[in-house]
Amino acid sequence: MTDQLRERWAAGGTALGAWISLRDPIVAETAATVGFDYVCVDLQHGLNDYDGMANAVAAMARTGVTPLVRVPWNEPGIIGRALDAGAAGVIIPMVNSVDEAQRAVSACHYWPIGTRSFGPIALGARGGFAGIEAANEQVLCIPMIETREAVERIDDILDVPGISAVYIGPADLSITYGLRPGMDQADDEWNAAIAKVVASCAAHGVTAGVHSAAALAAKRGEQGFRMITVSSDLGAVAAGFGADLRSSREATGG
Amino acid sequence: MTDQLRERWAAGGTALGAWISLRDPIVAETAATVGFDYVCVDLQHGLNDYDGMANAVAAMARTGVTPLVRVPWNEPGIIGRALDAGAAGVIIPMVNSVDEAQRAVSACHYWPIGTRSFGPIALGARGGFAGIEAANEQVLCIPMIETREAVERIDDILDVPGISAVYIGPADLSITYGLRPGMDQADDEWNAAIAKVVASCAAHGVTAGVHSAAALAAKRGEQGFRMITVSSDLGAVAAGFGADLRSSREATGG
Amino acid sequence: MTDQLRERWAAGGTALGAWISLRDPIVAETAATVGFDYVCVDLQHGLNDYDGMANAVAAMARTGVTPLVRVPWNEPGIIGRALDAGAAGVIIPMVNSVDEAQRAVSACHYWPIGTRSFGPIALGARGGFAGIEAANEQVLCIPMIETREAVERIDDILDVPGISAVYIGPADLSITYGLRPGMDQADDEWNAAIAKVVASCAAHGVTAGVHSAAALAAKRGEQGFRMITVSSDLGAVAAGFGADLRSSREATGG
Amino acid sequence: MTDQLRERWAAGGTALGAWISLRDPIVAETAATVGFDYVCVDLQHGLNDYDGMANAVAAMARTGVTPLVRVPWNEPGIIGRALDAGAAGVIIPMVNSVDEAQRAVSACHYWPIGTRSFGPIALGARGGFAGIEAANEQVLCIPMIETREAVERIDDILDVPGISAVYIGPADLSITYGLRPGMDQADDEWNAAIAKVVASCAAHGVTAGVHSAAALAAKRGEQGFRMITVSSDLGAVAAGFGADLRSSREATGG
Amino acid sequence: MTDQLRERWAAGGTALGAWISLRDPIVAETAATVGFDYVCVDLQHGLNDYDGMANAVAAMARTGVTPLVRVPWNEPGIIGRALDAGAAGVIIPMVNSVDEAQRAVSACHYWPIGTRSFGPIALGARGGFAGIEAANEQVLCIPMIETREAVERIDDILDVPGISAVYIGPADLSITYGLRPGMDQADDEWNAAIAKVVASCAAHGVTAGVHSAAALAAKRGEQGFRMITVSSDLGAVAAGFGADLRSSREATGG
Amino acid sequence: MTDQLRERWAAGGTALGAWISLRDPIVAETAATVGFDYVCVDLQHGLNDYDGMANAVAAMARTGVTPLVRVPWNEPGIIGRALDAGAAGVIIPMVNSVDEAQRAVSACHYWPIGTRSFGPIALGARGGFAGIEAANEQVLCIPMIETREAVERIDDILDVPGISAVYIGPADLSITYGLRPGMDQADDEWNAAIAKVVASCAAHGVTAGVHSAAALAAKRGEQGFRMITVSSDLGAVAAGFGADLRSSREATGG
Repeated sequence: MTDQLRERWAAGGTALGAWISLRDPIVAETAATVGFDYVCVDLQHGLNDYDGMANAVAAMARTGVTPLVRVPWNEPGIIGRALDAGAAGVIIPMVNSVDEAQRAVSACHYWPIGTRSFGPIALGARGGFAGIEAANEQVLCIPMIETREAVERIDDILDVPGISAVYIGPADLSITYGLRPGMDQADDEWNAAIAKVVASCAAHGVTAGVHSAAALAAKRGEQGFRMITVSSDLGAVAAGFGADLRSSREATGG
Repeated sequence: MTDQLRERWAAGGTALGAWISLRDPIVAETAATVGFDYVCVDLQHGLNDYDGMANAVAAMARTGVTPLVRVPWNEPGIIGRALDAGAAGVIIPMVNSVDEAQRAVSACHYWPIGTRSFGPIALGARGGFAGIEAANEQVLCIPMIETREAVERIDDILDVPGISAVYIGPADLSITYGLRPGMDQADDEWNAAIAKVVASCAAHGVTAGVHSAAALAAKRGEQGFRMITVSSDLGAVAAGFGADLRSSREATGG
Repeated sequence: MTDQLRERWAAGGTALGAWISLRDPIVAETAATVGFDYVCVDLQHGLNDYDGMANAVAAMARTGVTPLVRVPWNEPGIIGRALDAGAAGVIIPMVNSVDEAQRAVSACHYWPIGTRSFGPIALGARGGFAGIEAANEQVLCIPMIETREAVERIDDILDVPGISAVYIGPADLSITYGLRPGMDQADDEWNAAIAKVVASCAAHGVTAGVHSAAALAAKRGEQGFRMITVSSDLGAVAAGFGADLRSSREATGG
Repeated sequence: MTDQLRERWAAGGTALGAWISLRDPIVAETAATVGFDYVCVDLQHGLNDYDGMANAVAAMARTGVTPLVRVPWNEPGIIGRALDAGAAGVIIPMVNSVDEAQRAVSACHYWPIGTRSFGPIALGARGGFAGIEAANEQVLCIPMIETREAVERIDDILDVPGISAVYIGPADLSITYGLRPGMDQADDEWNAAIAKVVASCAAHGVTAGVHSAAALAAKRGEQGFRMITVSSDLGAVAAGFGADLRSSREATGG
Repeated sequence: MTDQLRERWAAGGTALGAWISLRDPIVAETAATVGFDYVCVDLQHGLNDYDGMANAVAAMARTGVTPLVRVPWNEPGIIGRALDAGAAGVIIPMVNSVDEAQRAVSACHYWPIGTRSFGPIALGARGGFAGIEAANEQVLCIPMIETREAVERIDDILDVPGISAVYIGPADLSITYGLRPGMDQADDEWNAAIAKVVASCAAHGVTAGVHSAAALAAKRGEQGFRMITVSSDLGAVAAGFGADLRSSREATGG
Repeated sequence: MTDQLRERWAAGGTALGAWISLRDPIVAETAATVGFDYVCVDLQHGLNDYDGMANAVAAMARTGVTPLVRVPWNEPGIIGRALDAGAAGVIIPMVNSVDEAQRAVSACHYWPIGTRSFGPIALGARGGFAGIEAANEQVLCIPMIETREAVERIDDILDVPGISAVYIGPADLSITYGLRPGMDQADDEWNAAIAKVVASCAAHGVTAGVHSAAALAAKRGEQGFRMITVSSDLGAVAAGFGADLRSSREATGG
């Protein structure tokens, strides 16, 4: 199967993604059809459970999109299940130490790199399993960097082999820097933290990714991010509802 | 419970609604929170089945929104089930004759008006059942007018007592006038049909409603519609995804 | 999207199909991957409801298979919903008269052929809607011929324009000929009925289809059937379980 | 499989049943374990859809209880699906005429009695299918008598062969006699209607059944009913919650 | 939103709760309508998974009830997900040590108190998110004290800041004291353990809570408990079924 | 309830099992009806979540089959939930050390053996709970031995009291021996590992189990395995589809 995220990276471009919180596989399918490079089904703060995620990944298999899953926590059971369902990679929350990074890498890879258990059930149904060596090479293990602690240890964390990209969670990162949760901040220290992560990524040959929004895409691209989530399903639906209601109220004198 | 749709009508205003196709009750809840007067869960062309609809109606009960359901067909089983689940009314597709209108009215009302069977299970759980007379008075029985045949018979259809509003389906109406399905048409005959329905509604004291979009709200309001669906969940999410991806591709040089 | 069933027919070949009763979309996806020309999700005697069917159709969209749905009854609501979910056609039980055939055709087609309501939601999400004319041309309206009554009226039924194929249900057909339900019968009258339907199909330019099994594929192909269901999920799983248990009991001395 | 309802009838006793509205198969399983003769999953006013019903019927198969399903309407598609899922019979709402009774009987029986389509999928999985003759003999076709119209025609309705029992819906019956919906009424005309139905059942050799409550069991038994629903899941849970809260508030000085 | 549990505590009263094991959101909605101060959806021994819990919490949002969730284990992933779904607090099983109490507190609070990740998706949809400071102040972190080990360490456990209440699990507590699982015990040591926990709670300004039943409400209230679960859905339904069947069998001579 | 697995063992026989990956409880029910001694619902690489597993276990309760669940990981929350749902035992992946074996045993047993929390909800609904002592005696705690590390420590692992059987995962075991994942291997070291585990089991009075296939049943039985999984649902369906399609293509000249 094609893998639009890696193709974008291979071409030196910036991969753009959509974020899925809603419990309907047609939403992920719509995102994939629209043309994002990756679509990530969020099992942490989103509303899906394993079943909705598996159906969403199946519904996207028709397109070239790279399916990702954010797991609820750095726990090998759900990491394995997400990959077995056909996710090309997992985004793993709250990786704050070398030990946690090693556990993330271990859960994503088969021996000898890690301890993933074998049983790629959905890839089997799709005729797409290419062997454990290929799986170990291709799996996208993407820890989230979203605390002050993680930023301070970023170089050590990125020394752990097997990390494909890191994914900054700006809201959580804001909180541990004493700021209100937000996609962006004016705060110097916070921005220095962002820059430090990007620089460490560059030094380690690891892609820098970030949870973001369309309005920030240019800025994040200039900062060196090559994996930027620019849209979310629930955000889009809430914004669309709000805009449609406001303009129609005005239009109908309400 | 409050009933924002009727309040809007009582105040002489225009009720604005959102349309729900997605299988996640939080979408309907979001629409209700945003402030639409009514939110309609579509069981005909939408993706929900009974269960998703019942959960969506439950999730909206917190707000003052008027929950509606479009049933898949003019069939008493599902009409009763939608009302039992707590819908304040039903939108009924393809009512093209006096006989079909009578069947729609019959399915929505208890004796002596109709043949609805008693068992308002969700209203019971909500402590909101006010008796069969109140139910017969308050239920919104809303046939769809969406064929040439129905337009031609509109006066006879509206003579049937028990119809609260009619709801024009512009896409299907377009088809039976030989046009491509669309929300609006430049075609004179089609526009005359629209005007005829609105006029007949006015003459019969029945609200004119229409499936529409925010960009058409002003026009439909001026035409006399007092129930206008101006937003849809899947439309909003697809539009939001598309806009975010386009602007972000430009912004990131993709 | 490709449409393997029509391609097979266009090439003068015999289309082979799998039958889906189980409530897991990966089963349909497996059938599609294995290479059947069509896969039919059975909403009549199978265990799926709308939701499972819609997810199965989505999971098959990756492949070239032609997705079909057998609806529970000749009822326009569920016929429309199956097509909206992305089915390329519907198999409609117990079509025993010209009137019932006309109602089946009507439910499958938009005006001016029929009365189907517009709202192809899943095709929209897939970017695959090609217009109502194309939809009317391509939809596979497949009535089941499964009673003595239907066999006797087969020529009149096939005179109804808009039928793509007929699908013989051998078990129900057996019953109305006074036989035990079965895939095949030694009974002359029953075999004459089969032959009569195939002959009438040939005369009317309509494909003859039949619910069958792999062991009967050669026979049915020789009889002139060009649409033969040769495998079923629950049948395969029950047969596999049985064979594995028997041989293993023997092997382990049990 | 055992069939506690028929055994009770065969022994000249009164069969007692529980009513299932909740979407959790363990509730039906609990009712079956407690020892009711029949448990009826309500698809009309209850909250289950096909899937929940099928799982409930499967969960009860361990016990000797007779599983029944009330279908949403007198429609052959869902009647067949309920029986295919393993229901021993169906309760069919709003059978008000000879024609409607004939349609109910037809949907419940295979040829030559009716037009049921063959495909008893769950019985197959349970190894319990005993042939179409046995199925035709054993199926419980139970029309509801719940309008004034039906009462007036009761003798004609019961002349239709193939009816095992009738089931009075006292709430709907109350409505068509101009009374508030209730399980029992002081009204003479209403009580005469009840008596008339019981008498007609006795004359026709058909069991009289009634939707009721434990407090009315003695009265209904004396009136000649041999199938009495005396408990409901949502009723029990609401009553239990209410009683526990009231006594505990008092006990804790709240 | 109102928060009946805290209001009850603020008024010096005893909060009474209902326990939800069943997979149908209308059960929790019924409990909330009946008037309990809190309703707890049990993800440990109950039958719900994340999805059922999220729908139950949404269905209760209409009322002033305080929604709680018992998580399956002291694990940050599911604790965060329960709070994101709109639970006002979590009951956390088997907290037997200071370290486990600290982990429970950490999972319930954002920085600087804990390590909860930001993403309150359902509160967002409800327009009810009041900021991370408010969330940290209001979240109800309720460890279960249900082993001898925990009782012995109760003072140290309650020294951990951030605990709102403790919740005694009498069945598990019985087991570690060598008794059969039960809601109450005659055993002196067991009752001394209960008293010790209540006394330690009083000394630490922490509410004492207990899993119980209506028959024990007075006793538990006198012992100083201010959070008493007095009813459960499956218990109520089983008790109601049993009582209805017994009295009806007698009444009908069965 | 009967317990076919233990009966087979008690009789000195070899227990044969089926493996369930599909999300439809009728598949497990079919396996139980066919006559396997145990049926295991796989929550690790299979597609079910808690809900599907609980429904599958309920559907099998009618038969004498021993229901097992493979949990996704060695985590007490899901182990307890599987047993509460009615599983007679759990298969626990990747038990590679004495500490991990002790944690597995602890999660499966109530005090004083372990730390399982009390709440056997489904057994309660089935009237089948026989007390905590019986539960502790009967629960099947079955760690998986599937790494080189585990094989090397097998004697120490089996010294841990409370293990009923071990279950070899040949695919994962292959990987840690540097081989491609497979059900069997020609490799001497790998076969020596298998033999070592069986020998250690014999020495410790623990049953040796293995994930396998019908074609290997004789061999595994001769090696001393007394618990052999010989069939899988998705395997059977994929094999059946493939065989039916191939033979039918040939038969129809395709």
